[in-house]
Amino acid sequence: MEASAQIGVTGLAVMGRNLARNLARNGYTVAVHNRTPARTKALVEEFGHEGAFVPAGTPQEFVAALERPRRLLVMVKAGAATDEVIEEFAALLEPGDMIVDGGNAHFADTRRRERALRERGIHFVGSGVSGGEEGALNGPSIMPGGSAESYRVLGPMLERISAHVDGEPCCTHIGTDGAGHFVKMVHNGIEYADMQLISEAYHLLREVGGHSPAEIAGIFRGWNGGRLESYLIGITAEVLAHTDAATGEPFVDIVRDAAEQKGTGRWTVQSALDLGSPVTAIAQAAFARVASARTELRDAYRPLAARRADVVPHELGHSVLDIEKALYASKVIAYDQGWTMIRDAAAEYGWDIDLGAVARIWRGGCIIRAAFLDRIRAAHAAEPGLVGLLAEERFAAEIADALPSWRSVVATATLRGVPVPAFSAALAHYDTLRSERLPAALIQGQRDFFGAHTYRRTDRDGSYHTRWAEPGRPEVRTDTGAA
Amino acid sequence: MEASAQIGVTGLAVMGRNLARNLARNGYTVAVHNRTPARTKALVEEFGHEGAFVPAGTPQEFVAALERPRRLLVMVKAGAATDEVIEEFAALLEPGDMIVDGGNAHFADTRRRERALRERGIHFVGSGVSGGEEGALNGPSIMPGGSAESYRVLGPMLERISAHVDGEPCCTHIGTDGAGHFVKMVHNGIEYADMQLISEAYHLLREVGGHSPAEIAGIFRGWNGGRLESYLIGITAEVLAHTDAATGEPFVDIVRDAAEQKGTGRWTVQSALDLGSPVTAIAQAAFARVASARTELRDAYRPLAARRADVVPHELGHSVLDIEKALYASKVIAYDQGWTMIRDAAAEYGWDIDLGAVARIWRGGCIIRAAFLDRIRAAHAAEPGLVGLLAEERFAAEIADALPSWRSVVATATLRGVPVPAFSAALAHYDTLRSERLPAALIQGQRDFFGAHTYRRTDRDGSYHTRWAEPGRPEVRTDTGAA
Repeated sequence: MEASAQIGVTGLAVMGRNLARNLARNGYTVAVHNRTPARTKALVEEFGHEGAFVPAGTPQEFVAALERPRRLLVMVKAGAATDEVIEEFAALLEPGDMIVDGGNAHFADTRRRERALRERGIHFVGSGVSGGEEGALNGPSIMPGGSAESYRVLGPMLERISAHVDGEPCCTHIGTDGAGHFVKMVHNGIEYADMQLISEAYHLLREVGGHSPAEIAGIFRGWNGGRLESYLIGITAEVLAHTDAATGEPFVDIVRDAAEQKGTGRWTVQSALDLGSPVTAIAQAAFARVASARTELRDAYRPLAARRADVVPHELGHSVLDIEKALYASKVIAYDQGWTMIRDAAAEYGWDIDLGAVARIWRGGCIIRAAFLDRIRAAHAAEPGLVGLLAEERFAAEIADALPSWRSVVATATLRGVPVPAFSAALAHYDTLRSERLPAALIQGQRDFFGAHTYRRTDRDGSYHTRWAEPGRPEVRTDTGAA
Repeated sequence: MEASAQIGVTGLAVMGRNLARNLARNGYTVAVHNRTPARTKALVEEFGHEGAFVPAGTPQEFVAALERPRRLLVMVKAGAATDEVIEEFAALLEPGDMIVDGGNAHFADTRRRERALRERGIHFVGSGVSGGEEGALNGPSIMPGGSAESYRVLGPMLERISAHVDGEPCCTHIGTDGAGHFVKMVHNGIEYADMQLISEAYHLLREVGGHSPAEIAGIFRGWNGGRLESYLIGITAEVLAHTDAATGEPFVDIVRDAAEQKGTGRWTVQSALDLGSPVTAIAQAAFARVASARTELRDAYRPLAARRADVVPHELGHSVLDIEKALYASKVIAYDQGWTMIRDAAAEYGWDIDLGAVARIWRGGCIIRAAFLDRIRAAHAAEPGLVGLLAEERFAAEIADALPSWRSVVATATLRGVPVPAFSAALAHYDTLRSERLPAALIQGQRDFFGAHTYRRTDRDGSYHTRWAEPGRPEVRTDTGAA
């Protein structure tokens, strides 16, 4: 077989098939391969007219079809299947060749695979791909990790097939080894938070505002014309406007209210705990899905209490505008928590990540694409060391403006028994970080009391322990041994 | 060397030394060993009069000193050190001998070690030990896992040296392999939540109530005479009453408000995510510690906003009694989240855990020892399948009584900018689980829209997908292929 293909795709389920078509439509010659050859055949029969495909029946034919350095895009199930396919193909490759994993691998697995393949001279590029089947076909957001050398070869191809916003590709070299899959994981964590925040806003509009799903669809459509403009707000309006054909009821009312998940939100929170990144809004979103699906707990709690509190003071605002402000402010916090986590990971794993570029490549192609990502991009671009969005003047001003509404809405929800765990967590995050003094000092005192874990003082350096059991409770300095 | 010792302790840092002394004081002959012999010598010189110690200079001497089946208690640092010591001693043991790991191992490591040693015929007992140095000496709460066979031999010794409450030992066989370390981990997660909740109550009493630390110490002392009676409430009063000798200021005001942690709270949340257990109050507690220590984030946020909101409606209660009720209700939820997680783990890992017994052995010896654990014990004992504490009549009645205060306090804190992430998370947990309908239905709709992830219906079985892009948005059943 002549080596005529610039890239090969193995694993032709919907994501792999659509990425292969996207590459072919963009003028690349694409070798295609699947474990069961029927899919390869079907792809060429159905979409062969879209571009140049080279169907390969065996791994050997597939590899032989690729120009050097060979570029293999692996689109198989994350986990053991990925390891098997990598092992199978790596044995057929030569130093300088490249394997791209476009699945949803855990970044720790990607780091392991990259290390192992690097020792064999093969570039391994763990790459986040967001946008679902539609994005894969028409332009996803692509987050490749791996070596800078591999990006020089692969980058132009990936940028070409990615979504574009303002003429800029939604693809950039995120950083070495697992950086791409890490950033994709955080994307999904933010997506969880965004969806939960939207669902809490909907719940408030319904339960407190008394609006129907159709009315709320209209409200979301309105919001989609403002600073909340985003793919998720748009589809929320679509979902809420939809009527179930079978019953004539609002679609949202006939769907079982048990949220499912595929694990990347959970990974985000687990990784954040390892990194020491406070991603509370993301965590509450992940747990809210979990709780909704715990039928036996819900059955146990449901009989407990009436929905309404006795008193909801009239001073508390909960208009549509108040809820918009609460949603916007919470969303800024949730996104910023994701960025903090990326910054922490870059420091921990030695990745040189351009935080502004992450926002840039999420403006299109992916699920959380939103107008305000361009402002996040601009904020990070203007000040590369930016600690958080609220350190930027315009975001700070918006949050200050939203604050009374945000507080009112969360207080109203609290009094009315409408659970808003992500709104609350975002506001508590804001209040925690801006507090002059936190009761963490008391926790340090407790820890020193029961476990001699020591504490630091506000007025001088060093670690100290109070001998709580001794008369007069003397304090000793523990880092020098001096009293 | 004559085999005269009923048990041996290797690793004579403070926990190991104190457990060895506790065993000797209870009449057991205890072989003692340490990698550096100076500690062994020091223990015998200083405390030899307390009982029968057999100092061993080498691992071989140590093992030779033990009656069969040999019982070795390993008290070394969790992680690689534990593996090394286990390997060293396992080589000297015979089938039927027992190694007890009393350190803070991750339960997954304990499962791995138990499996490996079981293949060699050696019983490995991962055992949680709570209570710090003082507990180790005078009676800890002990949570042994491992085989039932090993507990028949070890149980009587461990029960004897454990704390006792109402004549009952604070030790029981938790379950096989890693069950003991798992339950100890959850103990620590609950401890994080309890400490955070206490610190939020303190913060409210200080910032909203305007009380001084000394006054708050008095309030906590009062609470310690009621249903909140517990070790942590007691020591909180002590810490708050303490005056710093150097400055004359309240001690809590000279401690740096950056909370530290050793990781078990983090493990709890990470494991809960794997299990699908909604432990939101524990999670918020872990993240609150993290956030307090993020100096650069706090520096960025601190200039942002004034503490007070414009409006705090006078209808909202935030008296000392209101805060007591909020604290109590939140605490019930946080503890119950821990129990849910233990129940989930028992199902996942095949452990036969007596949920009432877990409460029983935490009534003494450990950090979260509290009067109300006896009520948790009773609730689970009365109804072995109890799904949650709020399914028990008395707890449900208490929460119903606390509810208006709980809501008012969280709303007041929200309006006043006092962060109460764990109070809020506990209340949101309650409101989530008791909601007739959750907006998780909207999330399922969004997921189906952007990723064809399917949903279930309230009115019939099956999985469904709406073809959102097609005219009329037809619904298809996906689990049978039928439309």
